Amino acid sequence: MPEYSDDITLDSVKSAVKFEFDSLEKRLKAVLRSDVSLLDEIYASLSGNPGKRLRPNMLFLAARNSDGDPEKAVTAGFAVELVHTATLIHDDIIDANDLRRGQPTVSSKWGRNIATIMGDYLYSRAFSCLSEEGLWEVISILAHATNAMSVGEMLQFQHKRDVNISEKSYLNLINKKTASLFAASCESGAILGPNGNRDRNGYSMFGENIGLAYQITDDLFDYLDAEKYMGKPVAVDLAGGKVTLPFIISYKNAPENVRRRVGDMLRIGFDKEGCWDEMLLFIKNYGGVEYSIEKARNFGEKAKTFLNAVSSSPETDLLCYAADYVVERVVPYSG
Amino acid sequence: MPEYSDDITLDSVKSAVKFEFDSLEKRLKAVLRSDVSLLDEIYASLSGNPGKRLRPNMLFLAARNSDGDPEKAVTAGFAVELVHTATLIHDDIIDANDLRRGQPTVSSKWGRNIATIMGDYLYSRAFSCLSEEGLWEVISILAHATNAMSVGEMLQFQHKRDVNISEKSYLNLINKKTASLFAASCESGAILGPNGNRDRNGYSMFGENIGLAYQITDDLFDYLDAEKYMGKPVAVDLAGGKVTLPFIISYKNAPENVRRRVGDMLRIGFDKEGCWDEMLLFIKNYGGVEYSIEKARNFGEKAKTFLNAVSSSPETDLLCYAADYVVERVVPYSG
Repeated sequence: MPEYSDDITLDSVKSAVKFEFDSLEKRLKAVLRSDVSLLDEIYASLSGNPGKRLRPNMLFLAARNSDGDPEKAVTAGFAVELVHTATLIHDDIIDANDLRRGQPTVSSKWGRNIATIMGDYLYSRAFSCLSEEGLWEVISILAHATNAMSVGEMLQFQHKRDVNISEKSYLNLINKKTASLFAASCESGAILGPNGNRDRNGYSMFGENIGLAYQITDDLFDYLDAEKYMGKPVAVDLAGGKVTLPFIISYKNAPENVRRRVGDMLRIGFDKEGCWDEMLLFIKNYGGVEYSIEKARNFGEKAKTFLNAVSSSPETDLLCYAADYVVERVVPYSG
Repeated sequence: MPEYSDDITLDSVKSAVKFEFDSLEKRLKAVLRSDVSLLDEIYASLSGNPGKRLRPNMLFLAARNSDGDPEKAVTAGFAVELVHTATLIHDDIIDANDLRRGQPTVSSKWGRNIATIMGDYLYSRAFSCLSEEGLWEVISILAHATNAMSVGEMLQFQHKRDVNISEKSYLNLINKKTASLFAASCESGAILGPNGNRDRNGYSMFGENIGLAYQITDDLFDYLDAEKYMGKPVAVDLAGGKVTLPFIISYKNAPENVRRRVGDMLRIGFDKEGCWDEMLLFIKNYGGVEYSIEKARNFGEKAKTFLNAVSSSPETDLLCYAADYVVERVVPYSG
């Protein structure tokens, strides 16, 4: 298994793919010239706090490690970031989120209708720019991923306030909702190289497992005092009826009277002021936090095993770092 | 210019492309097997009143006339119909429509959130099925069309309750919002044939002009007593602040005091009970109805001229019929 030195950070990733990263930022800024002032205004607001560009950076690393053309990688990474942004915008409508990365969401600032259109605009822009450069395989990968993401969203709806959702169903849901785009990003990077067909599956599985780890820790943040770090308030998922891994595990482990109590809290509607502390205690006392970190760590480790087939290189080191990063980011807040 | 006999009907179109039409229906039904019961349930409800399949049928005719592979045409038509359905679902969220083709809309029956996801699902399904059959050029055409459609939707928002929107801006808006998918359908049919690169532009322009005629008559229906015919109530567009051609023209022609009166009605909010009759009189008296029919007819005629380059055939006759159909359907209600 590839190893990396301890002093790697997210900035190391960015500087390792500096050409691609800088080109991506340039292309993302250029989206602004759309002749429709409202589109430009909304798009400009998204640049306020741009996020970590985790998915395109993983794509860039996979492409470099596969000797893929950097220009094509930039286009593919650009499309992935547009799809990701579109997804966030539509998610924020559905979850009625007011804040994202500490900034007002499109739906809270301009309303849900405009947010619906904005998401559609960015989705279709992603596919049209890929087609302009003939990146057909990337289109195929990304179309299937966006389709899986919408299925994941629908499953999430179907399981709203479902205290009996199994761990397996939860993992299937987050695989579709989140891991599919991580998998698509890494696979898209790999196919840009000459051995794409040999390596694509390994990279896809690597991305899928990182994506699972990512969503598990993301869901865990909802129960942790990480409001400042994440820029989104805690207890939002649960209040919205989203039953995630920490709850599923603690619910499984808790005695009947406790299950009845938290089940009622979730079903009847969740009052953050009234019973949040009790809920936090429940999640912690019955093993939900620990189990989730452990599970995320396992997915992170499993991800790395898929890089074994690929020769060790600075890029694989950085991809391994990304796998650890998505897990370990939650640890300081879980004490 | 190609001519057709008077006894052609929409059914003639369907039977001329019977293989493609039947295969399309079969494929549309097969979408149902998605493993997510909620998706299937919603999709099944859409089949209740399926619409005229105008866009795929035009694609089929263009493909036949270009000697395109019928199986590929079916896939392309399937994707076009999925995109069209996705657009309707998102439009119905935005316009807060309760009814479409006489049936409850997805957003009215399942809520706006689920409708957002359903639209995303159908969009991405369209692109993923095209990529499975390697129809890359169709993907490119359709990606650009869906992007234009979202821009059109955004423009519509920008011009909400804008009594001063010019005819030119209106035409640009409906070109993007509606005509782009008609153009994409016809162009997609043409490129499936051996002379695709020679003919695609003509077919695209043919579709664009039909699309313009289609949207103008569709907008006109909002002012006509065609509730039963269209399955959607009248006065919806105007009540929602959509300023369309009949209004634009009558507003331009009316004297200052009338302009002020209808301008106030539109700006302050529109009470259908109170002043609908007055509004209808305004649209009629100041030439909005007549002008719109004339304009639609001109676009229909212009559309046909783009078929001149193509040899006359039963398919061109039927395409010409489609051009007339989208215009003349409004005439019985405009007296």
